[in-house]
Amino acid sequence: MRYELYYTASNQGRGEFVRLAFEETGADYVDVARLAGPGQGPEAVTRFIQDAGVQHPPFAQPFLKAGRLVIGQTANILLYLGPRLGLAPRAEGGRLWVHQLQLTVSDLLKEIQDTHHPVAHGLYFEEQKTEALTYTRHFLAERLPKYLGYFERVLGGAQGRAHMVGSSLSYADLSMFQLFEGLRFSFPQTMRRVEPAYPGLVALHDGIATRPNIAAYLKSARRIPFNDRGIFRHYPELESPEQ
Amino acid sequence: MRYELYYTASNQGRGEFVRLAFEETGADYVDVARLAGPGQGPEAVTRFIQDAGVQHPPFAQPFLKAGRLVIGQTANILLYLGPRLGLAPRAEGGRLWVHQLQLTVSDLLKEIQDTHHPVAHGLYFEEQKTEALTYTRHFLAERLPKYLGYFERVLGGAQGRAHMVGSSLSYADLSMFQLFEGLRFSFPQTMRRVEPAYPGLVALHDGIATRPNIAAYLKSARRIPFNDRGIFRHYPELESPEQ
Repeated sequence: MRYELYYTASNQGRGEFVRLAFEETGADYVDVARLAGPGQGPEAVTRFIQDAGVQHPPFAQPFLKAGRLVIGQTANILLYLGPRLGLAPRAEGGRLWVHQLQLTVSDLLKEIQDTHHPVAHGLYFEEQKTEALTYTRHFLAERLPKYLGYFERVLGGAQGRAHMVGSSLSYADLSMFQLFEGLRFSFPQTMRRVEPAYPGLVALHDGIATRPNIAAYLKSARRIPFNDRGIFRHYPELESPEQ
Repeated sequence: MRYELYYTASNQGRGEFVRLAFEETGADYVDVARLAGPGQGPEAVTRFIQDAGVQHPPFAQPFLKAGRLVIGQTANILLYLGPRLGLAPRAEGGRLWVHQLQLTVSDLLKEIQDTHHPVAHGLYFEEQKTEALTYTRHFLAERLPKYLGYFERVLGGAQGRAHMVGSSLSYADLSMFQLFEGLRFSFPQTMRRVEPAYPGLVALHDGIATRPNIAAYLKSARRIPFNDRGIFRHYPELESPEQ
């Protein structure tokens, strides 16, 4: 079966967590918004969301078409794909655990998005910059260490395990990689300063980056560069308000 | 098996979505923070989260102990409980769909929480009131109608189905009920004005409220009253900034 991922082509965003799972496992998938055929392209994504005839409409992108199923919510897509791509444990307890970690990643992603959009999605960053400065100061001081400390604890630290869940690669590992990629792009000064406190996560990130399929993907045109339209944005003033 | 729910006793919060599933189905559960025995009470919740010996630590409350499993993240708990309590479809596609709806409820809950805490969890409401006024104005004008319109569409509107998923009660129905309860408490003026646009959801809410087990629960001391410590808070100035 060919999986069809529906997500904006303008930035990595939440879709990237699904793309990484596909790329690592060499799955047969298409990135619909980035194709140019009939029923493809960016319009296909929004058209589907607005289609009143859809039985199980997604609230937002990304969503996945898998045969007759339409699955929305990033973590839900990975819940479905995990066992099929060999990126989740077989037992129910393990599948719930890796999903729980992914849901915690989702929570963190929302808080990261709010660093540049704390007031309203519908406003430009420049219109909520004052609030963004305050929000980000609290986020970097209080929330980011709490999340990263938690994930480091799950991993067992420097002498810990190589994977977030059990002894095999799971989508939680790929998500940790992407989280670090994005955080380094958004908050480079902060990450340089705090990363020594998270040796397990840094080692995990570096290990994922050198996996053959991931390394090839990162070098390919399929990997959309980070930019200022996604969840992860680099606004230097947020990190160094005194500048 | 007796389920053990771990969640603060100080407010309904996210734990209430799990409580409603237990109460509707007459499940055998204990609300650990509200008990007074050894290893019980509010301290038991935080003690467990901080316990370095826990193999699958939750990032936050609520979490559920079910035999040897420890399950965190509200939607994940319901994913686990749904089929066991008869509150989710049997088929995988149906289970993913009801979970997807619950994850969308989770997203909305976070945005509701941010109406009174848009800057930082660690600050009091009074310290972020200016930002809260701006955030809430946008939330009520742009986000709330988007979410409620979506859920109404899923239900099929006034002439639609009686349940969110298929023709049976699911935890998504109970969550819609709780969402309306909370929104009416937090934003009574707004809800009075906008509810006629969501006849399906209002009918669903009213139907849930009169189910015998739910009605008995709502009248019992087990239902914590809404207050100003939870996700749903009533700060009149947020709704009527001109007052």
